[in-house]
This record gives sequence, C-alpha cells and structure tokens, in this order.
Amino acid sequence: MTLTVSQDYDIRIAALDENHLQWLVSRRYAGWVVIVDEETEKHCWPRLEPLLRPAGTPITLVRVPAGERHKTLSTCENIWQEMFRAGVGRRWCCLNLGGGVIGDMGGFAAATFKRGIDFVQLPTTLLSQVDASVGGKLGIDYHEVKNSIGVFANPQAVWIDPAFLETLPPRELRSGYAEVIKHALIADAGQWEELRGITELSTVSWEALIAHSVNIKREIVEEDPHERGLRKALNFGHTIGHAVESYLLAGDHRLLHGEAVAVGMITESFISHRQQSLSGEDLEAITGYCLEVYGHQPLPEAGFPAMLDLMRQDKKNEGTEINFTLLDRPGQAVVNATATPEIILESLRYYNSLG
Amino acid sequence: MTLTVSQDYDIRIAALDENHLQWLVSRRYAGWVVIVDEETEKHCWPRLEPLLRPAGTPITLVRVPAGERHKTLSTCENIWQEMFRAGVGRRWCCLNLGGGVIGDMGGFAAATFKRGIDFVQLPTTLLSQVDASVGGKLGIDYHEVKNSIGVFANPQAVWIDPAFLETLPPRELRSGYAEVIKHALIADAGQWEELRGITELSTVSWEALIAHSVNIKREIVEEDPHERGLRKALNFGHTIGHAVESYLLAGDHRLLHGEAVAVGMITESFISHRQQSLSGEDLEAITGYCLEVYGHQPLPEAGFPAMLDLMRQDKKNEGTEINFTLLDRPGQAVVNATATPEIILESLRYYNSLG
Repeated sequence: MTLTVSQDYDIRIAALDENHLQWLVSRRYAGWVVIVDEETEKHCWPRLEPLLRPAGTPITLVRVPAGERHKTLSTCENIWQEMFRAGVGRRWCCLNLGGGVIGDMGGFAAATFKRGIDFVQLPTTLLSQVDASVGGKLGIDYHEVKNSIGVFANPQAVWIDPAFLETLPPRELRSGYAEVIKHALIADAGQWEELRGITELSTVSWEALIAHSVNIKREIVEEDPHERGLRKALNFGHTIGHAVESYLLAGDHRLLHGEAVAVGMITESFISHRQQSLSGEDLEAITGYCLEVYGHQPLPEAGFPAMLDLMRQDKKNEGTEINFTLLDRPGQAVVNATATPEIILESLRYYNSLG
Repeated sequence: MTLTVSQDYDIRIAALDENHLQWLVSRRYAGWVVIVDEETEKHCWPRLEPLLRPAGTPITLVRVPAGERHKTLSTCENIWQEMFRAGVGRRWCCLNLGGGVIGDMGGFAAATFKRGIDFVQLPTTLLSQVDASVGGKLGIDYHEVKNSIGVFANPQAVWIDPAFLETLPPRELRSGYAEVIKHALIADAGQWEELRGITELSTVSWEALIAHSVNIKREIVEEDPHERGLRKALNFGHTIGHAVESYLLAGDHRLLHGEAVAVGMITESFISHRQQSLSGEDLEAITGYCLEVYGHQPLPEAGFPAMLDLMRQDKKNEGTEINFTLLDRPGQAVVNATATPEIILESLRYYNSLG
C-alpha cells in the first residue's frame, strides 16, 4: 500500500481555550462529532462543551462504553451508525475526547467514514497524551488481536490539555509515565537524568514533560511513519512488557500497560547489558528507578513459557526470531536486535530476584 | 484527515506474463492472498494461477460471493478472518482479481488489515479496468449507502489484462464503455471524435482504448486525489446517472451502471447546452452516439420526484444545491455547476422524448 502520512498537523499542549475554538471555527466545519465514553463524558466533556457551544455549530455527541474490551468493530459500527443518523457529511470534523481507546477507535471511525473526514485528537490520559495521540496509528482490536484492523492516518490537530490529568486516578497517571521514561531512555540521556529526580508524580508540572516526550515521539515517527526501522525504537520495553501484560490479563494481578512496560524496561535493559554495551551502572539505575516508581510484582515462573509464546506471536517479528529494541546506553536505542529464549527467561528471573 | 496518496505505482496494460511474476517475486512477499468471486475464480483465476504457482510463494485463495449486494462489512469481515486464519502478516500482498466490487472491497480489506498490507488490483471488467482500478478509492457499502465506509489508498500495482474482457457478457462490456466515452467527453475532444467511429464493441482493440482512458483518469486523479475540485470532472453523467440507476434498482428494468451513466450523459449534456456553452450540434452528437450504443429506455415520469430526492442526497453536494459537472464543449468539463429542479426535470423529459 503506497501512502505517505503527512506529519504536518497542529499539536498544542495547553489548556483548552478560545484559540482552539477559533482554529475550529476558521475551518468552517458543517458540524462536529464528539466521541466520549462514560468517564470522559463525566470528567472532560464539561470542560470542552462550554467552549464549543457558543459557536453554534451543530454538535453530535457519540457515547461509547469505556475500556479496551470495547475497542471492537461492533463499537465502531455504533459510531458509524450514529454519524449516519446525525447526517454527518464530509465537511464535518470528529473530536475524539478520551484515552487511547477513544483516540484509536474514534480516529479509525473518522478515517473510514465516507473515505475519511477530518478529526482532532483530544487525549485525556497521560498515556494517550504522550504516546497514542501522535503517530497516526488508528484501529480496533479484532479477532482477539490488538489493533489488528486499522489504518495510518493523521488528525488535523492534537490538543493536549494537561488539566485533564487532574481527573485521572494516580495509578493511571503512573502507568502513562512509563512512556515518558521510555522516550527519554531511547532518545535523550539528559532527559533521563532529569526524570530520575522525579519521585512524586502528583506534584509534577506536566506541561513541559509532555512536550518533551511528545517531541521525541514525533521526531521518530516523522523519520519513519510506517515502522520500517527507526520507529521500532519505540518498542523498547514492549516486547516483554506486552507479553507480561497479556499473560496477566487472565489472572487476578493484572498490570496496567505502563506497569507492564516498566517490567519490560527492566528485563530488556538486563538483556541490553548482556548483549549490547549498556553498562552495569546504567542497568542498576534503570532498574532502581522503575522499582521506585512502580514497585515490584513477582511474575509466576510457571507462566514464562506462555509469555515466550506471546512474544513469538508479536506482529513486529520477522521470521521466527523475537525482535527487540535494546539500549547501548541511555538515549541510544538499537532496533532489530534479537534475543534467545534462554536469555529472555534469565531476564525474567532477574526481575523476580529484585523483589 | 491529513494524508497524501502517492500516485506512484505500477500500471500495466498488457497480457499477464512472466514480467508481472518477476515484479511480484522481486518484492519477496511472505505470501499472496488472492481474492476472487465465483465468476473470476472460474474465468480469470485459471489464467493467473499457472503463472503464480511455480514461484512457490504461499497462496491463500479467498472466495467472496459475486455482486454489489455482497460489498458489505460482513463480507469484508470474512476476508479479514480468512487472512487471520492463513497467518497473513504485514509482508504479504493481496491480489484483487475481479471487477469493481472485488477491487473496492479487497482493497479496503488489505488497506486496513494490520494497518495496511500491500495490494495489487487485477481488474477483470471493462468498467473496473478504465475506472475503479485507478484513483485510490476503496470501500464497502454501509447503512444502505454506496462506498460509505472506506479509505483512499493506492495499490502497489494495477495490472490490466484486456484478455479478461473476452469472458465478459456483451452487456457488461457496453456498460464499462460508458466510462470510456465519459473520459473523452470531459478531457479529450480528439478522442471523442475517434470514439464516435466505433459502433461495434465486439471488434474493438481494447488495449489502446483502455490506455487512453486510464491516462485521462490518472491525470485528473493525480491533480486532485481527494476530490476537492478537478476530480469532480469525473462525475459528468453521474449526478443524474446515479439517481436513475438507484431509482430503477427496485423495479424490473434495472440498468447497469454504464447504461445509467449514458442516460446521465445525455441529460447532463442537455443541461450543459442550456446553461453552459455546449452547442446544439454537440448535444445532438452526444445524444445520438449514446442512443446508438445504449438504445433508449423510457424513464417513468412518476419516479422523477424520487430521482430528484436521490440527487439531493448525493454525498458530493455542498449545502442544499445539486452539484453537477457540465460541459462547455467536448473535452472541456465545468465542475461545481448547479442546476434547478426545473431544468433537471426538463432534461429527463428531453431524454424520454428521444424514444
């Protein structure tokens, strides 16, 4: 498939205000669709609605149920049907107000409705603000595979309002922070040193941190929009992290995405120390900081073979080897590395030994 | 939505041979999905299969039922599920072997599978060879609206083998020929003069005619991939043509797409004569040639109001007026014209008076 996703869109990290409204109004949309879930309708829509209403543009509010398990074709169909019912046309704009699920699914619904209408991402969680809202990956989970149906397409704008984070449970905030750490580790050693000074997330001034993190992601994505090479750097912590997250989904000790990525960053740093040039000191620093922020949850050894199987199924693998992004040092990622099952198991046991 | 569809792909108008295979093999796909319907499995796959098999690349044949009424999300889901079942990954290529339905739906399925895998269009009808296979419009019918869910995305290649036309019923061939006439009328007066000499389609040498027609479409689409302006020229004959086609769908005298477009070209030329500078002589020439090729089928006057309603619902309208592409003369289209209900009705009565 030959297409080029233009990265030329409006990213603002600022409190929602008249400037945002003016931008929207200047585009003379025939109407605005706003997609929310129960949570964002309660906590975030009251912040957006008073800004939009006075403009007089028709607004259609589309409600979807909250949670990854609703990121399905069936929910997407509900969105399309609501759009048809409201007479949404090509000159409408879709505003996706929510976390990663709303952004991915609402973006996909917009990008495929009448072959694509404009959409704006308004990410409301830290995870979606620093990660999902940038990069043009849209989609739904299908056939029990995450994001298996989707497209690459960019929004007209991404509006990140840090005030939305105030409505977020602390555990969700901490989970999103893992991607901030990851962005520093793969691309910016200085930022990594800065982050190590942060021990209390509730007092962080998020605006600058988000801006820094988004810029790293944006630069990587602009270099490699379709994940041919460099973009794989963003997978650091995710090969093992995803497998741990998926494995624990079935049990009583589920981890949030970022919590699993923290486990992934520790274990993949271990592998980086063994296979790449990551120093023992840096390994200790990464391990220490991740444990400080995320604590330690022992992983069931009996599940290690199943976790390995999950890693083998990752759609990013080519051939039969398990693909990793590793570190040569903080700020320097190495894409397309591989690791043997033996060393992966060793890294998981290393993690367990830290408890 | 911000994206740029690259027009840089391989269009070949030639009998399928070793060159095509070499192109495919050089891309080292992990496997090939071939999408067919009952018709193309019977008539066209036997021409492609002997070429592909010796390469040894895994082939997954996906069968879908033939006909526009199966161009649905549900059929698309079957395609996705077959792809999952066969272990199709990002490095596979999807070959869409069929008419417009297979091209649009197979292309959409490929463009959304794991956020997009490569695909090649192998159009087997004249209509899809000169029209649907070029331009990047993909999609399915949804909520009773044609092509209402879809994306713009280009294939890696379009391979047009005129030999497939030999398996086509004469009425289908004639229907596709309407788009050849249309391309000449909107962009190439000299070609229009050439076409007027063609009275017997069964003896036409299609290769040159298809190449000419595809080039006109390609040039227009390259100028305006997302139908902001110039591309609307391609709608000539389609505002009224689509309405007539849709209206007659419910009755006993259904028209094929091109047959309805012929009615649309006559009526819209009538409006062009009244509102634009199209001469009476040119109107007569267009009317005469379309009647010569397509004959005349009286339209039920009682259905005119319903046809007008259908025109009003066209997704190409902006605001409440009915959008037309008209002619100033053969080879010179005028986009974003409008016409009143009165003159549209008059044009339909003009058509009926020709019988």
